[in-house]
Amino acid sequence: MKNMESIALGDKASFEKTLSESDVYLYAGISGDFNPAHINAVASEKSIFKKRIVHGMLTASFISTVLGCHLPGPGTIYLKQEVVFKRPVYMGDTITAEVEVMAIDYEKKQVSLKTTCTNQDGIVVIEGSALVKPPAF
Amino acid sequence: MKNMESIALGDKASFEKTLSESDVYLYAGISGDFNPAHINAVASEKSIFKKRIVHGMLTASFISTVLGCHLPGPGTIYLKQEVVFKRPVYMGDTITAEVEVMAIDYEKKQVSLKTTCTNQDGIVVIEGSALVKPPAF
Amino acid sequence: MKNMESIALGDKASFEKTLSESDVYLYAGISGDFNPAHINAVASEKSIFKKRIVHGMLTASFISTVLGCHLPGPGTIYLKQEVVFKRPVYMGDTITAEVEVMAIDYEKKQVSLKTTCTNQDGIVVIEGSALVKPPAF
Amino acid sequence: MKNMESIALGDKASFEKTLSESDVYLYAGISGDFNPAHINAVASEKSIFKKRIVHGMLTASFISTVLGCHLPGPGTIYLKQEVVFKRPVYMGDTITAEVEVMAIDYEKKQVSLKTTCTNQDGIVVIEGSALVKPPAF
Repeated sequence: MKNMESIALGDKASFEKTLSESDVYLYAGISGDFNPAHINAVASEKSIFKKRIVHGMLTASFISTVLGCHLPGPGTIYLKQEVVFKRPVYMGDTITAEVEVMAIDYEKKQVSLKTTCTNQDGIVVIEGSALVKPPAF
Repeated sequence: MKNMESIALGDKASFEKTLSESDVYLYAGISGDFNPAHINAVASEKSIFKKRIVHGMLTASFISTVLGCHLPGPGTIYLKQEVVFKRPVYMGDTITAEVEVMAIDYEKKQVSLKTTCTNQDGIVVIEGSALVKPPAF
Repeated sequence: MKNMESIALGDKASFEKTLSESDVYLYAGISGDFNPAHINAVASEKSIFKKRIVHGMLTASFISTVLGCHLPGPGTIYLKQEVVFKRPVYMGDTITAEVEVMAIDYEKKQVSLKTTCTNQDGIVVIEGSALVKPPAF
Repeated sequence: MKNMESIALGDKASFEKTLSESDVYLYAGISGDFNPAHINAVASEKSIFKKRIVHGMLTASFISTVLGCHLPGPGTIYLKQEVVFKRPVYMGDTITAEVEVMAIDYEKKQVSLKTTCTNQDGIVVIEGSALVKPPAF
């Protein structure tokens, strides 16, 4: 956990999890996103991805996990997130979400971070950036 | 459902749901985001939000629901999402996620949409934009 | 647990549970039934039921619970179910599902049961009947 | 979405989803139907179905999804459902639930529909019928 005083350029943190079929199904269930690409094995065989894929915003949720739990950590106010979906994520893929401090605005008390999700083969599946206000403690 | 030929500037679609405590808890469980702001009632009483709030990226998931299920709909490839978190969302809030077509690039076959989430009082909680490739059918 | 030999006319069994908001939300999530009547508190205030109601088929699921777990019990083959939805069920209602043996066909090895769901005020919310093949053991 | 005025004989709508192990387990959890046929892999190997099967009433839930979300859609009042379980459904099966308008009673404002669930091989797993009151708007 870091605050405005202790956070530094280049600070990094990450979170890693294997995304299961049940993760995807629960996420469909709470988001209402029943796009066949995620929950229809027959229809998704005919798609360009050849099988069911994980919701992009579910993979992206791991970025929020790192920001809110690790760097800066609890107390952080999430201001902005940009995600670019580069490659599909499949059920069973193990995703590492990493954030890295890129800029610190001491006046506005805001921190910019590069946010990247990578799969088990080292392929970047999501690129992007976040803007947060670290905890004040 | 729309494709590159049928989609038009100004097209809109939306999805609406009341976010429950169980949604937040399930989302914490699949994302790993156990930030006390979301799952600790005691700690969050002392926060600036005064009670547990919904994960910003959970509210944002409804945007993906509209894009993937309604406009453009199944077959859409999600390229990019930017979200600006404007206001907290509380358990029990009813959120409307709306997307509106802002630009169509016929050469790249890409569509830009404004993406907005509003609560039951008409207050904008998330602003942002998406870039998608509509289905080819 | 009963089989073709031990089951008798008038045999009864029941299952009782308070239906929570999380039950309704999980059921929406697995069934895909995001009808606003179940998951939109604002929209359902304007409905004839005045608030969110439980999916009828979720309440009806308790009938299957009694048939498959108690009477006749494990090994039963479920052949047919008819349900008549008499009254709305709200989150927080405590439902008793009761089945009662009405007819036994020893030749076809089939049993007919009356299936009734009642709320905490003794009001019948579901009426109907089931046809099952009891276990052979 | 249709109402009493716009609905017509022969109107059809459908919903399709691959049923996962997690769907079955969550359904067991909310319905209380812990029949070994659904959640005991060892016991169900010795059953006539040879492996764990999906709860019949879970497959049937997709019928309610079509009625409540698509045809007639939100605002529909569900009056009656009859389901005949024809064949087992296994985890991993992709089920299409289809409803078709068979009769319209303009006096009672009620609509009868044929309700059919089919698996990925085109085999009918559930047959039946529904009676609903379409939305009044």
